[in-house]
This record gives sequence, C-alpha cells and structure tokens, in this order.
Amino acid sequence: MDPPLPNPGGAALERLTVGIVGCGAVGRAFALGLARRGARVRLWSRRSESVRGVLDAVGRCAPGRAAGVEFEEFGGLDAVLLCVHDDKVGELARRLAAHPRPPGVTWHTCGYFGIEILEPLRAVGGACGKLHPLLALPSESHLEDPLGGGVFCIGGDGEALALARRIVSAFEGRELLLKPGEASDRLYHAAAALLSGGFVALLDASVKALARSLDLEGEQAETLAQEALQSLLESTRANLRTSSRGKALTGPVARGAEAVVAGHLAALADVDPQAEELYRALGPIMSRLGRYA
Amino acid sequence: MDPPLPNPGGAALERLTVGIVGCGAVGRAFALGLARRGARVRLWSRRSESVRGVLDAVGRCAPGRAAGVEFEEFGGLDAVLLCVHDDKVGELARRLAAHPRPPGVTWHTCGYFGIEILEPLRAVGGACGKLHPLLALPSESHLEDPLGGGVFCIGGDGEALALARRIVSAFEGRELLLKPGEASDRLYHAAAALLSGGFVALLDASVKALARSLDLEGEQAETLAQEALQSLLESTRANLRTSSRGKALTGPVARGAEAVVAGHLAALADVDPQAEELYRALGPIMSRLGRYA
Repeated sequence: MDPPLPNPGGAALERLTVGIVGCGAVGRAFALGLARRGARVRLWSRRSESVRGVLDAVGRCAPGRAAGVEFEEFGGLDAVLLCVHDDKVGELARRLAAHPRPPGVTWHTCGYFGIEILEPLRAVGGACGKLHPLLALPSESHLEDPLGGGVFCIGGDGEALALARRIVSAFEGRELLLKPGEASDRLYHAAAALLSGGFVALLDASVKALARSLDLEGEQAETLAQEALQSLLESTRANLRTSSRGKALTGPVARGAEAVVAGHLAALADVDPQAEELYRALGPIMSRLGRYA
Repeated sequence: MDPPLPNPGGAALERLTVGIVGCGAVGRAFALGLARRGARVRLWSRRSESVRGVLDAVGRCAPGRAAGVEFEEFGGLDAVLLCVHDDKVGELARRLAAHPRPPGVTWHTCGYFGIEILEPLRAVGGACGKLHPLLALPSESHLEDPLGGGVFCIGGDGEALALARRIVSAFEGRELLLKPGEASDRLYHAAAALLSGGFVALLDASVKALARSLDLEGEQAETLAQEALQSLLESTRANLRTSSRGKALTGPVARGAEAVVAGHLAALADVDPQAEELYRALGPIMSRLGRYA
C-alpha cells in the first residue's frame, strides 16, 4: 500500500457537504475525490458492506471526512450525488423528492440520462444536474484519485451547474457541456461507449487473430500478440498527435488495395467471423476518412 | 531541426551492405535505421527525387553511409530489401532473379505476403525472407529512427532469417515468427490492419458523434471531443495494463443493459448510420468478452 498522497485540491471544497448514494466504482471515486479536496462526504448504499469498504478507503487518504448515514439523512444536505445504476436513478429521485426537506442540489452520474430524470426533485424546488465522469471505471478500481484531472460531462439548473463546475475545477478537470435535450445525452454516451468498449473489443478481436498466426501456442501467443499490437497502436497514436485522423490512417483501405482487403476478410472469416464483421463495418469509415487525407 | 542523435546501435551492422529498393516511408525508415547502425545502404527507386530525399535524411544522421545506385548494381550485394508496394514485389523478385549475380539474401517488407512471392530468387539459389516492421508509418513520416525498438515480423530461409534477426537485434526490436504458410501472413496482416486502421476509424466515428452532442460548433467541437475521448481512452488503457481485456471492458454491453444499448444504436443511427453499424458489429465481441470477466 502506498502512503496517503497529499490533498491535490487542498481545501478547495472545505465548506461543502455532499451526500453520495451508491458505493460502487463511481460512488467510491467521488467519495475519495471529494474528501481529499476537503468536502465532508455522507454515504449511503443498500449494501452496508460496500459503505464500509469506501469509508476505509477514504479514511486512509482523508481521515474523518466521510461517514455512513441513513438514507433519511440526505434530506437537508447541500448536495446529493446519485451514483447508482441507470435503472435506479428515477426511483431515488422520487424518494428524495418525498423527503420533508429535499436536498438543495441533486446530481446524477449517469452518462445516458439528461437531467429530465430528476424531474420529481425539480417539482419540489430542488436544483438538478448531471455530473458524469468520462472515464472507464472498472468495478474493482483501486486507484486513490481516479477522477482527478479527468473530463466531466456536466449540465443542469443554475445552482446545480455552478456547484458542479466548482467540483470539476477542484478536481482540476475539464468540462463538457451538451446541447440541450435528452437526445444529446444519449448521443454523448453512445460515443463514449463506442470508443471505450469498442476499443477493448477491437483489441480483443485483433489479439486473437494475431495470436492464431504466430508460431506459439495458447497464452504465450496471446501475450506476445497483445504486446505487439500495443506497440503498433503506439505508432498510430503518435501519428494522431501530429496529423489529422485522415492522414494518420494507414493500411489497405486507405491506399485502395482492394485485393488485400478481400484477403484480410477471408483470413478473418476462417478464424473468427465476428472479427470479419467488425472489419467490414470499419471499412466505410476508413474509406471516408481516407478521402480527407 | 533537432541535432543528429548518437547511433543507438553503434556499429552493430558495420560490415553489412544492404540494397534498398523503394524510397517511400518504409524504404526511408530502413535506410535511416540501417545507416545509423553502421550498415552501408544502397538505394534505388524509379523516382530519383525520392532517392535524393532519403539520401539527404540519412546524410544528416549518418553521413557517408548511403548512396544511390542503378538497379543493376543490386546484383552481388549481401542483401536486398524490397520496400515497394504489394503489387510490385513479384515483378522485382523476377528482375533480381534475372541478374547474372542475384543477391545472397532478399527480403520483402510486405506484411500481407509470405516468402513464397520471392520464389524466383529461391529458384536461382538466393535465400529469401520477410522483414515487416509492425508499425503505422504515414507517408509523410519525419521521424529520425522510426523502426528503433519496434516489432518486426520475420521469416525465411536459413541465412535470410539469421540476418533478419541480426538486424532486428541491432534495432533493439522484438521479433514475431509466424506459423508456416501464406495463410498465417494474411491473418497476421489482417489483425494488424484491423487494430491500427480500425482504431483510427473507431476514434473518428466516436469523435464525430460526440462532437454533435456538444454545445459547440464545427472544429471547436471536434477538437474538444477528440481530447475528451483520448482522456477516456487513457483510462481504458490504464485498466488494460492491470486487468484482462474481459475485466477492462466497461459499458452497457458488459453489464447487460439492453435498453441503453438500444438507445445508443438509435442515437447513432440519427447522426451516422456507419457508426451505428460499427457499434452493432462490436456488440457480439463485447458480449463474449464480458463473459470472460
């Protein structure tokens, strides 16, 4: 275990108390990040053992800043952050709205939703917002400050937006503001899922195909294939730092080598029809990109 | 212009003379890398102005090590490296084989081909091999040592393979050896093109979709979208360094959120049907990956 890091944001959020609902990867990341920056954090989850896990983690880096509470204690807090699965957000908004003293500000952290899903809280005079960290947080993250320096998609009513900005600033993060309307939220989230999940899937399909071409067996082949493809990817990413996407595109589609493309498709079809389908789906995007170069 | 770098490989290849056919991005990269490591380089291309460009670049980092020659002078050289387009390799192999003194070793640098395409040289007693650098080399690369520390797919007859290994070692590179047979070469190259070109296409589709969701217009939106997605990708890649691909996969497919997946597809279909198709093609690979987690 590394020693506790100094508070990167100092006491930037010292006078703020934030209630966090949900102690999964997102709740844990916000609890750590907010407490390190001086905020008081109040946690609740249906699963009390996950609350204890997050309190332990916060205690190691920002002692005394976090405590577990009953759900009812969220009423009257400055701000509450809903860090729960998509299908629980609406229900929790209704429960909070039914409180005699609903929180002043409530955000959800779901990329897919706009603020409309918090409507019950708006109806009782609360300010509502969205505060979605744009990063891939695996369920077993052990990072000490996963959100520091990150990108956040924010939106919402006046006070909710202003306080979200203060938090993003304390996190030394960058903000993304979406066009109004839920369609923008869905498109934003689709783009993020396309890149992040899509990248892992693309890597997986490529590693498996490459591994089958190597003069090695099993895990050894996959390990070497993944290392080799990571090295290839480094060169592609280096090109993207100095060139447009169109100019950084290399390969047979970019140079119009149709026979090679056909050979690639046949080779992939032999070992992994899903990889062949993926190559086919990438084709038109590579073609249109090649035309910008 | 940066000052010339020291020769990273010293005089590792001092007694070697290598003829290079073709002065595009691959020929240039090998000419620079070989000359920096002490080899003498002899260049020929149908386009004499591209020979001059490479000679200038080599002259800046390894003066006196490279010279332009007539094609006929490749006969009798230790080794010749064919750095030409896929559809020229067979023809050049025949031309070299017709020389009164064919080169001792000939390699091609095409990822897609096995050594079978050099058969005419084998038939006259030459040793034949493959030496394919696994990296994305854009046509306008200005790097001083693009191949140093890279991954090379090698193969071939005894002497051709041994000399290829000496070069990879001098380049401080890593080697990939394929299973025998041209099917392996095609699959290897398909996997590389899938990852490298596929990544640029995936990024492009994601950037365009995200840009359209942002409360900004045109180039500003695309720039911010690409920066935000690169930051997201950093988190995904960090997860891949410590977790399996299955565990590093996040997003709605991984957690079985079918309604969110359907919403993503609808959102992408509205702005870019090719991005929707790409998301669909990634789906089954994400699903099977999710099951490993």
